[in-house]
Amino acid sequence: MKNGLYTVVLLILLSVSSIFGQNGNLITSEAQLQEMKTALKSDNLFHATVNDAIEKVAPYLTSGLDVPVPKDLAGGYTHSQHKLNYSIMQKAGMLYQLTGNDTYAHLIKNTLIKYAQLFPTFDRHPATRSYSPGKFFWQCLNDANWLVYTSQAYSSIYEWLDQDTRDLLNQKLFKPYADFLSVQTPQFFNRLHNHSTWANAAVGMIGLVMHDEDLIEKSLFGLPFKNENTIDNDGGSIIKEGQKKAGFLANIDYAFSPDGYYFEGPYYQRYAMYPYLMYALALDRNKKELDIFNYDHQILLKGIETLVQLSNEKGEFFPLNDAQKGMSYFSRELKLAISIAYEYGDANKNGLLSIVEELQSVPLNYGGFLESNAIAQGKVTPYNKRSLLVTDGNKGDKGAIGILRGNRQEYIMKFTQHGMGHGHFDRLSYLMYNKGDEILQDYGAARYVNVNQKDGGGYLKENKTWAKQTVAHNTLVIGDRTQCHAKVDKAEKATPSLYYFDINNANIQIMSAKDSIAYDGVQQQRTLVLIKDDAFENPILLDLFRANLSSDQKLRMPYNYKGQMMYSTFENKSLNTLPLLGQKDGFQFLWKVGEAPSQGKFNQVNWFNNKVFYTLNMATTKEDSINYVLLGANDPKMNLRNDKAFHWLKKGHKGENLFASVLETHGSYSYTTELAPNTYSSIKNVNVLFHSTDYTAVSFENKSGEKWVFVLCNSDASTSSKHKLKLDNETLKWKGVYQLKKLI
Amino acid sequence: MKNGLYTVVLLILLSVSSIFGQNGNLITSEAQLQEMKTALKSDNLFHATVNDAIEKVAPYLTSGLDVPVPKDLAGGYTHSQHKLNYSIMQKAGMLYQLTGNDTYAHLIKNTLIKYAQLFPTFDRHPATRSYSPGKFFWQCLNDANWLVYTSQAYSSIYEWLDQDTRDLLNQKLFKPYADFLSVQTPQFFNRLHNHSTWANAAVGMIGLVMHDEDLIEKSLFGLPFKNENTIDNDGGSIIKEGQKKAGFLANIDYAFSPDGYYFEGPYYQRYAMYPYLMYALALDRNKKELDIFNYDHQILLKGIETLVQLSNEKGEFFPLNDAQKGMSYFSRELKLAISIAYEYGDANKNGLLSIVEELQSVPLNYGGFLESNAIAQGKVTPYNKRSLLVTDGNKGDKGAIGILRGNRQEYIMKFTQHGMGHGHFDRLSYLMYNKGDEILQDYGAARYVNVNQKDGGGYLKENKTWAKQTVAHNTLVIGDRTQCHAKVDKAEKATPSLYYFDINNANIQIMSAKDSIAYDGVQQQRTLVLIKDDAFENPILLDLFRANLSSDQKLRMPYNYKGQMMYSTFENKSLNTLPLLGQKDGFQFLWKVGEAPSQGKFNQVNWFNNKVFYTLNMATTKEDSINYVLLGANDPKMNLRNDKAFHWLKKGHKGENLFASVLETHGSYSYTTELAPNTYSSIKNVNVLFHSTDYTAVSFENKSGEKWVFVLCNSDASTSSKHKLKLDNETLKWKGVYQLKKLI
Repeated sequence: MKNGLYTVVLLILLSVSSIFGQNGNLITSEAQLQEMKTALKSDNLFHATVNDAIEKVAPYLTSGLDVPVPKDLAGGYTHSQHKLNYSIMQKAGMLYQLTGNDTYAHLIKNTLIKYAQLFPTFDRHPATRSYSPGKFFWQCLNDANWLVYTSQAYSSIYEWLDQDTRDLLNQKLFKPYADFLSVQTPQFFNRLHNHSTWANAAVGMIGLVMHDEDLIEKSLFGLPFKNENTIDNDGGSIIKEGQKKAGFLANIDYAFSPDGYYFEGPYYQRYAMYPYLMYALALDRNKKELDIFNYDHQILLKGIETLVQLSNEKGEFFPLNDAQKGMSYFSRELKLAISIAYEYGDANKNGLLSIVEELQSVPLNYGGFLESNAIAQGKVTPYNKRSLLVTDGNKGDKGAIGILRGNRQEYIMKFTQHGMGHGHFDRLSYLMYNKGDEILQDYGAARYVNVNQKDGGGYLKENKTWAKQTVAHNTLVIGDRTQCHAKVDKAEKATPSLYYFDINNANIQIMSAKDSIAYDGVQQQRTLVLIKDDAFENPILLDLFRANLSSDQKLRMPYNYKGQMMYSTFENKSLNTLPLLGQKDGFQFLWKVGEAPSQGKFNQVNWFNNKVFYTLNMATTKEDSINYVLLGANDPKMNLRNDKAFHWLKKGHKGENLFASVLETHGSYSYTTELAPNTYSSIKNVNVLFHSTDYTAVSFENKSGEKWVFVLCNSDASTSSKHKLKLDNETLKWKGVYQLKKLI
Repeated sequence: MKNGLYTVVLLILLSVSSIFGQNGNLITSEAQLQEMKTALKSDNLFHATVNDAIEKVAPYLTSGLDVPVPKDLAGGYTHSQHKLNYSIMQKAGMLYQLTGNDTYAHLIKNTLIKYAQLFPTFDRHPATRSYSPGKFFWQCLNDANWLVYTSQAYSSIYEWLDQDTRDLLNQKLFKPYADFLSVQTPQFFNRLHNHSTWANAAVGMIGLVMHDEDLIEKSLFGLPFKNENTIDNDGGSIIKEGQKKAGFLANIDYAFSPDGYYFEGPYYQRYAMYPYLMYALALDRNKKELDIFNYDHQILLKGIETLVQLSNEKGEFFPLNDAQKGMSYFSRELKLAISIAYEYGDANKNGLLSIVEELQSVPLNYGGFLESNAIAQGKVTPYNKRSLLVTDGNKGDKGAIGILRGNRQEYIMKFTQHGMGHGHFDRLSYLMYNKGDEILQDYGAARYVNVNQKDGGGYLKENKTWAKQTVAHNTLVIGDRTQCHAKVDKAEKATPSLYYFDINNANIQIMSAKDSIAYDGVQQQRTLVLIKDDAFENPILLDLFRANLSSDQKLRMPYNYKGQMMYSTFENKSLNTLPLLGQKDGFQFLWKVGEAPSQGKFNQVNWFNNKVFYTLNMATTKEDSINYVLLGANDPKMNLRNDKAFHWLKKGHKGENLFASVLETHGSYSYTTELAPNTYSSIKNVNVLFHSTDYTAVSFENKSGEKWVFVLCNSDASTSSKHKLKLDNETLKWKGVYQLKKLI
C-alpha cells in the first residue's frame, strides 16, 4: 500500500455512497451500544468506568460548562477550561448513548452553541509563541485535540439535534474550525509530524460526523503543497526534504517502521497514538471498506504492541530522546490504544489483558467493554516482555533499538534515526534497568511538563545544552565533544547500522551496531552480549565498544549510574574545591568531584541501588583513569537533578581502541534483616586477548576459577562464515559471528 | 516497682519451688503446643510460617550444621555460619515440638555436641576489636544472641535428651558459656545498655532451661560491681555515673520512659526488644509469679506500642540518633514483639492485627498462632497512628519526642536525652514525612550495616564527623557550630524541656520545647503548630523558632529537604567552582552551590518530591539570606549520599531572634496525565507582628485574602492564665498559651 496505489483505491472507495452509520455514531455502532448496555447490570471494570464518567460529568449538568474568551497559555485558566470542556463533552456523549438520558445531550448542545457564538468573534489566540497559533488555545495542536474529542461528543447527539441547531453548528463552528486547522494553517496540517496527525484526525473525524467528503479527503491525503518551508517552535523544518505527501495516510507511512516503531521515540509515540487510533476507529466504523486496521500489515496495531514492549517492568516507557520519565502505559492514551489492540488484534492470545488487569481500568469504549468482559471471564494470560529488535525508518532500514532482557534486567541499546528536533546525540548508548529501577540512566528530557515554575512547563534550555548532549548518555564521548557537533542536520543525514542481533540462544543474547557519522573519521561499534550461566546469580553483560580513530583523541565512557558508590579499585582523590569538567557540550554542567588513575590491568567500580549491587569489571591499561562527576554546575535555577556519573577515560590512539567490560548484577540487601550477601562481584579479571578491526577476543574469570573466552568477528556478520584466530597460546576456530567458550 | 522493693519481692519468688514447666519448654507450654498443632490442619498464616521453617531447616537435616573454629569478623564465613546455626536450631526446636519428628531433635543434639566439643578448646575469639571479645564471635554481643536463640532450641529437646548428653551439654557448653558471658565478662554483663540486655536474657534463659537458680538470679539482678570503669567500642563509659544496679530488671527500669520510649531511640529499641521480650516470655511461662508483663505498669508492652507509633506510614522507624533508614516493623524483631503484644496486651482492641495483616506473616510462636487465628476470623481493626507525646527518661522527665500527624503528613520533633554514644546533636530538630516519604530528613547514621566494602559494615567515620553534627539536622545552627561543642558528656548533662503540647483540638495541634544547653548563653525555643483549615489543601505547619543570644552570632537554619528545587524568591547566583561551606562541625562535607540575599519581608522556597509540592513561606528581613548546599565534599570514598539542603541565614543579634515560617504541602503531579494543579503555595505573606521573650505574634494571609493571626506566650504554659498583648492596630486578649484567630 506504500507505493501510491492507495490514492487510487481510496478515491474509488470514497465515491461509494451509503458509507455512513445511521445512528450518527462516530466510533460506536448501535449494535455495540446495545451490547455495552448489558455491562451496566453487574459489577465489572467497564461499569466502574461508566460510573466514574457519571461522577466526573455530574457537576456540569447543573452548572454548565464555561466557554471563556481565550487568553492564557498552557496552565492558565482559559486553556485549562477549554481542555476540561472537550473532556467532559466527550464523556457526556458516551453517557448519553449508553443511558439515553438527554440531560447529557443538552449539556453538549448548550456548550457547543456557546462555542459557535464565540468562534466568529475573533481571529486567532492572542499568544504568538507558536509557529501555528491556535484558536481557543495558544497553539493549533491543542485545538486539534479539542476537535478530536469534541467530534465524538457531537456525533453522539448529531441525530438527536434539530436540523436548525445542526446547521448552525456545522456552519458557524465545525466547518470553519476544520478549515482553520487545515487550509488556513497548512504549515500545521501538512507536516509529517505528530502535530499534523492530530490535525488530520480532527478534520477527518468532524468530516465523518458532518458527512463532509471534502474534509475527509483532505484529512487522508493532505493539502496541495504551497509555501510551508518554515520552521517550527523547536527549530525543526516544517516540510521534509523530498516530501511529496501529507495527510493521515502519509503520516502512517512516514512515521512507523515496519516493526511499529515511531520515529520520535516512545514518549511521543504514546502521544501520537491517540489521534492515529481514534481516527482509525472512526474510519473503521464508517468506512469499513478502507480496512484501516489492516493497512500496511496492521501497522497501527503493531505500533501498540511495540510501544508496550518499549517499557520497563513498571510499565514506564524507555526515556529515549526527549521524554519525561514516568510516562507509562498507565496513561489514558495507552488505555485506549490497548483496548483497540484488544478489539482488533489477536484478541486473547497476546497477553494484553494482563496489562489491562494491571491498569485496573478500561476506557469508555467498545474495546474497553470487551476487555472488561474478558477479564470477568478469567481470560487473562501473561504478557511476554521479551528481547527484541525494533527497527527504525519506514522501510526498517534506519537503525534500530535493541532490547536484551534476562532475569529482571533490561538492556536497551539505541542506534536509530536521530528523531528530528526531539532527538538526542546518543548513538550506541544503552540504558539498563533492574526490576524496573534505572541503573544506568538516560537523563531524559530537561523539562517539567506543565509545571509552570519551570519555564512555563516547556522544554528548559538545559534540554538542549545538557540533556541532548552525548555526555548525558552511556556512550563514548570522543575528544570531549558531542556527537555530530550537536547538529541535528548532520545527525539526520545518516543513521547507525545494525551489525548483528541474535536472541535465539537464551544463554547468549547478542546485539551489535556500528556508526561512522557521530565523529568525523571514527568508526565505532558496540557489541553487548548478555550471558546466562549458572556460575552467576544473574546474566552478565559483556560490553565491547571499539573505536577506530584517525588520530589520537581522548576517549571518555560515561556511566550515568543511579545509586550509591560502594567501592572502586581506583584510588580516588577527592577534589574539594570543585572544578567544572569543561565549558561546553554539556560538560559545563558537571563538577569533577574526584579522579583517579588506573591500578593496572583490571579495575572494578561497585555501586548499590535499591537493595542490589552492581559491578563494572573493566579491562584497563595503565593509561586509563576515572572521573567521578556530579551534575548541577551553571544551573542557578536548579533545573537539573544532581545526578552522578563515573567516566572511564582512555588515551585514544590512532587506529583501533577497545573498551571491554563485564557488568555484573549481584547480591542483595535487606533493611530489616540487614543481611548483605554477595556484595562483591564474582568476577576476578577481564582480559583483552586480541583486538583488531576484524576480530576482538576477550576472556574473563570468576572467583571459582571458571573462565570464559569470547571472540567476535567485527567485519563479517554472516552466520555461516568460518573463522580462525591465532592467539598466544592457542588458535580459536569457529563458525558464525562469535563464539563463547567456557573453560573450567 | 521502681523503688527497689522488687529485689525483696523477687528473692521471695525465686525461693518458691515447682516453678519450672514440666515439658522443658522454655517459651511454649504443652497446652499451647496442642492448640498450635490445630493450625496445621488448614491454610493460615501460622501454617505458612511453619512450612517456611520446614523448608529452611530441611537441607540441614541431611547435611548437618557446620561448627567451624571461630576466625572471622562480621560478614565472614565463621561468623555467618554460627549465626545460621542458632537460627536453624531454634526453628528445628519449634518444629520438633510441633511435629514430634525427632530428626529435628537429632539435628539440634548433634550440633550442640559439636559446640560442646569445640568450646573448651580455645579461650576467646582471635579478633580483639571489641571491648568484650566473644567466644564464637568477635564480640560477646553475638554470643549472647547465640545463647538467646539456642536456649530455645535446647529447651525443646531438653526432656528428650538422655541424661548423659544433657549433663555433657550443661557442664561442657552451657554453664561455661553462661559464665563466660557474665562473671568472666562483667564489663559486658553489668551495663545499662542493649548489650547487657542481650547478655542478661541469654544467661537467664539458659538458666531457666537448666533450672540453674544462680544464673537466673544473676540475669535478673546483675553481678556485684568491680572494676567496670572502662569504655566501650564507641567510647561510651561502661558504667553510668551513680549506677547502683544491673541485670535485666535494672535495664528495664533504666532504659524505658513511662511512655515506653527506649533511651537510645527507635532503631536500637527494635534491636533491644527481642531479648527483653523473649526473656520476658520465658519468665512468664516459667515464673508466672513474677508477672513480668505487668512489671512497671506493663512497660514492656507499652514499649512495643510506642515503637510502632514511632514509624512512618510505611512502617519505617523515624531515624533518630544512629539509625539505618529503612528499618521497620517488617523486621523479625517487630514481628515477634507484635505477637507478644497481641498475646498479652489489649488483644483485638488495639488494632495491632491490622499491622500483622500488613506484614502478611506471623512468627513461629504461640502469639503468632493467636494472630493467625484472629486474622482468619476477620478480627482486624484499623491501627491508629496518632499525634502523641513520648516522654524520655525513666521518670518521664528528660524531654520527649513530639509527633503531630495531620492528613498524611507527620512532623516529629526531638527534644529527648542525648542518647549516649548513639545520640545526635539535634535538639529541637524536626523531621517531616508525607505519605511515608521523607520531606525534611534526618541524615540517619553514616553506615551501611553489614556491607563489608563500607568499612566492614560498621559505623563510618563520617557518622561522627557528619551525621551526628547539628547541620545534618533541621534545627538552628548558631555561629556555624555544633550543639554542645559536639561533646557527649555535655549533651548528656541536661535535656531540653517540654514547654507545651496539646493535640486535643484537631484543627490546632501544637508542640513547643525549650533548650538552654546546646549553645552557651543561648535560650532556644521551637514551637510547631499544625493548623487545619478548609482554606488549605493540607494542614499547614507554623514554625516559630526563637533564640535569645547573649551576643551577636550568625544563625543558620538548615532545611535538609528531599526532592527537586522548583523555584525560590531568592535570586540565586550559582557558584560554579564550589567552595566548601566550612572546615569543621560537618561543614567540611558541604559544598556551597549557591547563595542569595533576601528579597525583602517575605520569601518562598518551593520544591517538589514524589508528585507533591512543598513551599516554605518565610518572614524575612533584608539582612537574611539563603545558602544552597550539597553534601559530598572531603569524601573520597563516597561514603555519604549527595543530599541537598537550603540554609536560611539570619544575622543573629544579641537578645531575641525569631525564625517564623509556614510550611505548606500542596498540589500534585501525575506523570501519566501530566496535570499539575496547585504547584504554588496558597500563602502570600507571613509577618511577625510582635516578638519578645514573653510573646510572639505572627500573621499570614492566603491568596483568597483570608488572614490568620497567631499569638503565643513563651513564658507561661498555664492553660488558665489570661494574656493581653498590644499591637500596632489592636490589642489581643486571650486565655491560655496561645490563640489563633482567622480574619476574613
